[in-house]
Amino acid sequence: VILVVCLNPALDITHDVPAVDWTGVNRPSAVHARPGGKGLNVARTLRALGADVLVLGLAGGITGAGVAAALSEAGVPAAFTAIRGETRRTFTVVDGRGGGAALFNEAGPAVDEDEWAQFRVQYEKALAGSAAVVLSGSLPPELPDGTYAELIERAAAAGVPAVLDAHGAALGLGAAAGPAIVKPNLAELEALAGQALSAAGRADEAAVAGAAAALRAAGAGAVVATLGAQGLLAVTGDGDWAARPPAALAGNATGAGDAVTAGLAFGLVAGWPWERRLRHAVALGTAAAAAPVAGEFSDADYARGLDRVTVTRLAAR
Amino acid sequence: VILVVCLNPALDITHDVPAVDWTGVNRPSAVHARPGGKGLNVARTLRALGADVLVLGLAGGITGAGVAAALSEAGVPAAFTAIRGETRRTFTVVDGRGGGAALFNEAGPAVDEDEWAQFRVQYEKALAGSAAVVLSGSLPPELPDGTYAELIERAAAAGVPAVLDAHGAALGLGAAAGPAIVKPNLAELEALAGQALSAAGRADEAAVAGAAAALRAAGAGAVVATLGAQGLLAVTGDGDWAARPPAALAGNATGAGDAVTAGLAFGLVAGWPWERRLRHAVALGTAAAAAPVAGEFSDADYARGLDRVTVTRLAAR
Repeated sequence: VILVVCLNPALDITHDVPAVDWTGVNRPSAVHARPGGKGLNVARTLRALGADVLVLGLAGGITGAGVAAALSEAGVPAAFTAIRGETRRTFTVVDGRGGGAALFNEAGPAVDEDEWAQFRVQYEKALAGSAAVVLSGSLPPELPDGTYAELIERAAAAGVPAVLDAHGAALGLGAAAGPAIVKPNLAELEALAGQALSAAGRADEAAVAGAAAALRAAGAGAVVATLGAQGLLAVTGDGDWAARPPAALAGNATGAGDAVTAGLAFGLVAGWPWERRLRHAVALGTAAAAAPVAGEFSDADYARGLDRVTVTRLAAR
Repeated sequence: VILVVCLNPALDITHDVPAVDWTGVNRPSAVHARPGGKGLNVARTLRALGADVLVLGLAGGITGAGVAAALSEAGVPAAFTAIRGETRRTFTVVDGRGGGAALFNEAGPAVDEDEWAQFRVQYEKALAGSAAVVLSGSLPPELPDGTYAELIERAAAAGVPAVLDAHGAALGLGAAAGPAIVKPNLAELEALAGQALSAAGRADEAAVAGAAAALRAAGAGAVVATLGAQGLLAVTGDGDWAARPPAALAGNATGAGDAVTAGLAFGLVAGWPWERRLRHAVALGTAAAAAPVAGEFSDADYARGLDRVTVTRLAAR
């Protein structure tokens, strides 16, 4: 089983409005409501790959019940720890005129010490039978930055490798706790490095490799940076690698990043060498970017992508 | 017991956003989620007046469960008929800069014939023990315009007087079915009359009285028009009345109209003469307009208003 920890899941609500009146009353022509949050996208992708998955996390209130019900309907096993706070919603208004969108993201519920202690008990129990754990997405506002680091240490103590997709202090502290793989995107890596790693809209791959190597030196087993259309740059115990998609990644960037995380976790558990892990991760990311909804992809896109990804071992830095 | 029929309840979600970026990502500073729909506002107001209330209606999905749970928490008894469709949400974004707001109102769920038949059974059972029934708010999109008329006829057959607050064809057909009281606002009455009944932002009270009399002649026992700051104009079996609030009604117009409906139903059941019914209805409407949330009012505002409402019997038309 691959554990997927989603501490701050969401109900993602989208309204398609033919021509938005931002100062008045609108009647959406279509309404979508789906379980969201990066961890749930990862879990759905892993499930679609055929992996055994168990989602753990915190969910509360009617919105939390809605997320759990929708996951169950989608065939993704989940065992959320119940909290008194209300699971967050995200609300997206898509303007039919130009395709522009406004997003309104609730922060997430309060979590008290008892609830967190209950989660930790569930987490430790679940670790016992797990091949890997994926920690992905934002933290509820009141959980400390060291939360992922704590969960990675407990996984390490249980001999379970961790894959971390986070940002800011949670990423920095988490990487230092020794996860098998950390997957920052360019902006997250730049924020952590405290400097730009790109110019004129292109990542400077030497600079990215340097920042990734620093993050690896801090404690991560490997660092895989997602660079949009430039694909992945991986700094691993088996050297540095670049994995490039066949064409420009267009579309759903969030979905693409979460699919890469899922591909990396799947390859880790399968024991694949880095060349193969990265090939599958890029093909999945490309297929997910083309899908309308994060957490989904077409098998045909995925299969087609596998042959067309270029994976290169980079010269020693 | 006063039955309150709310066929298209809602979960009203409000995001307060300090300075909205209508093209990007926003983090609300405050989030509110409340049961909504005009019928529920009426029910909460009746409950606050001390009336025995039972809400009937249609509710489905997670949002429907949320509405039912929130009503139960608020101490308002409800027995919704379960439907397969998902109860609607309304979403309001309040821009902290200017107080402007954008509203996104989902239309409401599909209702099939079996579900409607089940509702009718529940409705007829509940009619047996009821003193009055209030029918208020929009219909789910697939229910026919004659829906309220059908429910009013069944109430009449059971000897239960009906109070109707609807618009468009549902209002016209409903009034013809013989409710005790119909409560249109100015815009609804104008739409039904097919002509303007106001000029320069003020209702033409003689014209309103004419349109109300026509609606009464069509079958309603009494017609009470809400005219904003001008208060109420009532055409009843005991003559025509004007009831004026002490000062301009500012604030929540939806909440004010629903409070007037609740006040009229309360007075009907209590057997009050029209002078007293209208005085209480205006005082409630004024108090509700001043409250931040529809369906709520301050007892002090209500009590203060009672002494300050002016109710006048109008000369025969």
